[in-house]
Amino acid sequence: MTGRRVTPPTSGRAARAPWRTPGAPAPTNAGRPAPAGVPAEPGIARIAVDLLGGDDAPAVVVDGALRAVRADPDLHLLLVGPAEAAGELIAALDPAQRARVAIRPVQAAVGMADHPSAARAHSTVRAAVTAVRDGAADALVSAGSTGATVTAAALGLGRWSDVRQPALVATLPAVAGPVVLLDVGGSLDPRPATLARHAMLGAAYAAVAHGVVEPRVGLLSVGTEAGKGDRLRRHADPLLAAEPLPCGGRYVGLVEGYDVSLGARADVVVTDGFTGNVLLKAIEGAYAMAGGPPAGGGAPRAAALLGVAGTVVVCHGAAGADDVASGIALAAHLWRRGAADLVCALLDAAADRIDRTTDTEVRTL
Amino acid sequence: MTGRRVTPPTSGRAARAPWRTPGAPAPTNAGRPAPAGVPAEPGIARIAVDLLGGDDAPAVVVDGALRAVRADPDLHLLLVGPAEAAGELIAALDPAQRARVAIRPVQAAVGMADHPSAARAHSTVRAAVTAVRDGAADALVSAGSTGATVTAAALGLGRWSDVRQPALVATLPAVAGPVVLLDVGGSLDPRPATLARHAMLGAAYAAVAHGVVEPRVGLLSVGTEAGKGDRLRRHADPLLAAEPLPCGGRYVGLVEGYDVSLGARADVVVTDGFTGNVLLKAIEGAYAMAGGPPAGGGAPRAAALLGVAGTVVVCHGAAGADDVASGIALAAHLWRRGAADLVCALLDAAADRIDRTTDTEVRTL
Repeated sequence: MTGRRVTPPTSGRAARAPWRTPGAPAPTNAGRPAPAGVPAEPGIARIAVDLLGGDDAPAVVVDGALRAVRADPDLHLLLVGPAEAAGELIAALDPAQRARVAIRPVQAAVGMADHPSAARAHSTVRAAVTAVRDGAADALVSAGSTGATVTAAALGLGRWSDVRQPALVATLPAVAGPVVLLDVGGSLDPRPATLARHAMLGAAYAAVAHGVVEPRVGLLSVGTEAGKGDRLRRHADPLLAAEPLPCGGRYVGLVEGYDVSLGARADVVVTDGFTGNVLLKAIEGAYAMAGGPPAGGGAPRAAALLGVAGTVVVCHGAAGADDVASGIALAAHLWRRGAADLVCALLDAAADRIDRTTDTEVRTL
Repeated sequence: MTGRRVTPPTSGRAARAPWRTPGAPAPTNAGRPAPAGVPAEPGIARIAVDLLGGDDAPAVVVDGALRAVRADPDLHLLLVGPAEAAGELIAALDPAQRARVAIRPVQAAVGMADHPSAARAHSTVRAAVTAVRDGAADALVSAGSTGATVTAAALGLGRWSDVRQPALVATLPAVAGPVVLLDVGGSLDPRPATLARHAMLGAAYAAVAHGVVEPRVGLLSVGTEAGKGDRLRRHADPLLAAEPLPCGGRYVGLVEGYDVSLGARADVVVTDGFTGNVLLKAIEGAYAMAGGPPAGGGAPRAAALLGVAGTVVVCHGAAGADDVASGIALAAHLWRRGAADLVCALLDAAADRIDRTTDTEVRTL
């Protein structure tokens, strides 16, 4: 389904291989999205976890993995990193839980002992990507450097051919339902066309991952009147207005900062990765100032990476154990829904519609 | 004090005139900043208020003006706009309060009746600028279009010569004191040098307006490690590091979104006007989601305009009566402290230091 539009990995770095595990159970409710917020759908999900990613790795990653295993009986974990780091986790589990946890030790490369921790962490995220590519895991989670994870995933799993810059997608609880915010750190200097492509990604993701019907898509700016915004927004606005959105999505025009927190005007908010990243953290800080997040939940510290041919979740570098557990649960949720495949297929279909329209226009000229 | 570095207004549009009212009482505590948050310093402050600025003008502007007059016995208002709009306000005041309110009717230009409301509002903000320039008011407040207010103020009052793009400066209450955020909408596509200049403006403003001692200045980015950020931030970071800051300010490097809400790492956060604007509104939305702002106060809906030769406060277009009253109080506070003069003088002194250093370097070559 995705083969036609997937860019193969860079030759010489990693061989192309099917990114979905052969024989993996088909997503049980793919195509029938359940209401947002429904946790732990049935179906085995095997998640590779980068033990060395994050400021407080491996301790908080191990703690988060422990919580995730205990919370979801159909979750299997492949811990990628030094075996000694996982020992404590294994020891804390009962035998039935322990049977769902495996370790993939990262072999020390020549001179690895001299490598700084960042380089070691990069080698674990690459090993986690390899595990997904080879079918040993269904998805991966890392709290390591976003740039290193995006690069490793794009090289190891391939990119969707229509998505030049993968997007990190965060979901915030809002008044009337979830708000999908993208990008939150993948593309720091995007072109207007990238924002238009991310609008399609966001609409498909909102429908597939959160069951949003006919998602309303807005472009973040400093006011709602047409023409408001900086150069990037003024160029992107007409492109988003012209792009046919999947899943019955419709472009509602420019939205403002409030709409990210409150969700009144849009289900999907599109922005550049710089703005999205600082916005998400400012909202998290505001909740801390206000004495805690709202009842529906606070600003997420885990985001899905869309645009690479696999299920990848990136956690915040300063993620705590609960954040890592949330990231693992998100990866399992996306895998069970077949989200990466479905979003890619929806983009394909939308692109085909554009192609057919263009063909018709050409023939009628 | 400011004459040397002030760019005269554009010739042919408005004649140059002293922007500080001759004979106005000197700021009683200029140079001795009181602790942040101390309201209503003594000293007459005469504020011109644009009656037609804002989405809900004139009703909320009139209501806000009423509240401001009642709260501050040394406040005088010059209401600029249609006389009939101010009638209700005048009628609601007791005789002593009424003596502190005057009206400057905006004369209907030829064909004014056919003008859309935006054009009429622009004419009131221009008239308010004229009132400040001519000495009939000490400062002005408008909730009208930011672009129109900035343009009218720059043309009518002149710009500081070292500030290419005026900045809108918002102050957020945070854990350890106020956080000064700039820009929040003045410069949507700034150059790196503009961010460096705004760092100086922000440091001086934090010291003068809020009594912050040796302000810590940070550049907003997606991480704190050097090199993090988009193209603009990567170019601006070394410029900010090289710029000598007034008032003992020091550059603390890159900061993140949390730091705007929490203020843990910086007293002044510098960013482009696009990001600052959406950030401020997202924080406001987050407080609404969390059930209300923290005890210290929420995200402000009034911002000071720095870089023009006068005291100008811009309120949010959707400002309520309380926001307008806060904006009027802010304008009075800034006037009483002589903030515009002092900030301009501090920039002068910092620039002189740069000039002397450069001269010394040239002589020693």
